[in-house]
Amino acid sequence: MDENILGIIAGVLTSVSMIPQLIKVIKEKNADELSWIMLLVLISGLSLWIWYGFIKDELPIILSNSFAVIVNITLLICYMIYKKK
Amino acid sequence: MDENILGIIAGVLTSVSMIPQLIKVIKEKNADELSWIMLLVLISGLSLWIWYGFIKDELPIILSNSFAVIVNITLLICYMIYKKK
Repeated sequence: MDENILGIIAGVLTSVSMIPQLIKVIKEKNADELSWIMLLVLISGLSLWIWYGFIKDELPIILSNSFAVIVNITLLICYMIYKKK
Repeated sequence: MDENILGIIAGVLTSVSMIPQLIKVIKEKNADELSWIMLLVLISGLSLWIWYGFIKDELPIILSNSFAVIVNITLLICYMIYKKK
């Protein structure tokens, strides 16, 4: 299989698996099950993967980790909004 | 920065961020917040990333996704054990 197609399918699957938690948090307006420390650790790790993807010039890695960063920054924002209540 | 060191740091960070959920599920013996469909989607995606890592011969990708597969298979086993109760 072409490695880029493989990487894109892999990225779509790992990205799709993140959506339900995001929907749940937004729908229930409840972020109690999230840990902001772990979100920050995760966002840092994902950002380094994007950097890694740029160095290696691998689009599937850049795209899937960028998507994951967006999802997790959104979760972090939800955490800050809903925790105040 | 050497790309392998970068990838390993990235992998350690994204791996570490998974541990609290695993500990929580095992400690509370409660897997209600897990979705087995999403775990299967995630495990499929991570497995394809391992395959991608082998094709590209990139150890950081192979190692971090292998770790993630182990964590998520453990979560899936926890789901099956605790859901029965």
